[in-house]
Amino acid sequence: MKIYVIGIGLIGGSMALDIKKLYPEATVCGIDANEGHLQEAIALGVVDVAGKMEDLTTADFVIVSVPVDVAMVVLPAVLEAIGDDTIVFEVGSTKAPICEAVANHPRRRNFIATHPIAGTEFSGPSAAIHGLFQGKTNIICEVERTAFKLQEKALDLFKAIGMRIRYMDPKSHDKHIAYVSHLSHISSFMLGKTVINKEKHEQDIFDMAGSGFESTVRLAKSSPAMWTPIFKQNRKQVVKTLEEYISNLTQFKDLLINEDYAAIYEEMESVNRIKEILNGINIKK
Amino acid sequence: MKIYVIGIGLIGGSMALDIKKLYPEATVCGIDANEGHLQEAIALGVVDVAGKMEDLTTADFVIVSVPVDVAMVVLPAVLEAIGDDTIVFEVGSTKAPICEAVANHPRRRNFIATHPIAGTEFSGPSAAIHGLFQGKTNIICEVERTAFKLQEKALDLFKAIGMRIRYMDPKSHDKHIAYVSHLSHISSFMLGKTVINKEKHEQDIFDMAGSGFESTVRLAKSSPAMWTPIFKQNRKQVVKTLEEYISNLTQFKDLLINEDYAAIYEEMESVNRIKEILNGINIKK
Repeated sequence: MKIYVIGIGLIGGSMALDIKKLYPEATVCGIDANEGHLQEAIALGVVDVAGKMEDLTTADFVIVSVPVDVAMVVLPAVLEAIGDDTIVFEVGSTKAPICEAVANHPRRRNFIATHPIAGTEFSGPSAAIHGLFQGKTNIICEVERTAFKLQEKALDLFKAIGMRIRYMDPKSHDKHIAYVSHLSHISSFMLGKTVINKEKHEQDIFDMAGSGFESTVRLAKSSPAMWTPIFKQNRKQVVKTLEEYISNLTQFKDLLINEDYAAIYEEMESVNRIKEILNGINIKK
Repeated sequence: MKIYVIGIGLIGGSMALDIKKLYPEATVCGIDANEGHLQEAIALGVVDVAGKMEDLTTADFVIVSVPVDVAMVVLPAVLEAIGDDTIVFEVGSTKAPICEAVANHPRRRNFIATHPIAGTEFSGPSAAIHGLFQGKTNIICEVERTAFKLQEKALDLFKAIGMRIRYMDPKSHDKHIAYVSHLSHISSFMLGKTVINKEKHEQDIFDMAGSGFESTVRLAKSSPAMWTPIFKQNRKQVVKTLEEYISNLTQFKDLLINEDYAAIYEEMESVNRIKEILNGINIKK
């Protein structure tokens, strides 16, 4: 089995590690615009060798795991270069733009649009870890547009690395993910900004910030190179979630200004049911 | 040694567990307005026996760990009831109001104002855990207003359970803590609200929400009974942090509306230094 990983970071690299463990005979070839990352990935044993676009014709799987703006350019080129039995998937956090970009591509049936809901706030080959996808959800869009035999091939791989499969249309995916992922990142970045701007003496933060603060700003460590194009591609949905979030924060602030503590209590109590939702997430882990 | 814990929840209960481990000969007496919590605490072995306010005169330590509005009433009553060598401390998340409340109390020198920066999103006796305070910071306010011998007694205990001590005036504490704790809780509650309001079908959230979402909304599990009075007592500071947070979110939203992606990239990159700040927090853990 021959696997190509284009963009060897957290997601591509972690998939490479799981695949190498599952299929010891597989050769994992890495392609990365960043030569340093490529060499690091080989040195870390995340991939076996450096690959070339010209060789994609011999690939069984091609994993495109690059920032979503780069994927718009790379994916069509990859589809040009592959063989008839190659299945290509892309793992970005926006799905509608990429599905549109290849909608009329002659090789569309060799492509399966996916979004593995897995990751950490870290990036680059050194962020790759074994078992990242175990029990996580992989959202697949427009599955009917992928050749049936190649769907099976991809699904077998996703299941082998422990993923639950969910099917969704690209627009619904982008709308929902804005709420449960993209908004969380912005809330975290802006929370970090608010505190950093205020607390010029970081030692004060060291001393006073606890695990609660850490938890809410963890995502502010995320890569701007990865997230800027996600916000760009999902701009309308993200703006909408931000408007709703800002309006909820403003309403809470007004309740405080008006000292309506009964309403503040009720607000918090009604959100407490997030416990059950989070338990649902934990079960997947 | 005789210890009284008034309000046996996460903080008071966890302190009781550490004290019982450190000083097996100590008797830990529990007092709680909630009879069910008191019995649960005894059943769980968090405290040894039920205590009475009348017996506080024999106490070495009295830990007041109740919601901050209740503390305003309970603490003066406790100070009336204790003996000359009893040291009383209160562990709430606001410090100026409580310090003012007992500023002129004849027993002020038997009180030490503290805020252990430790906790989880859980509450009640069952939330009590061993070693919660290990490596955490305990902020002490107006230490000079506590009798020196009793300061020593309290500090020895705090150090014995693994805490780092920091001294701060109550107003500075309340101002800083609004940024690194109170704001995080509101951002989390309102993020949870925004998503719940949108995603009526929770299964969608189960399937699409990952560890990032979980991390940013974890604090939305927190107790409204504990947090409403904190927001009330620190209202002016919390409103100020909310105004700054909302303004940063609005500015980010406007950058998106105006498609200024270079500025969006810079915003995120400049906040990435939160990594070092969080590393500082981790070192404490």
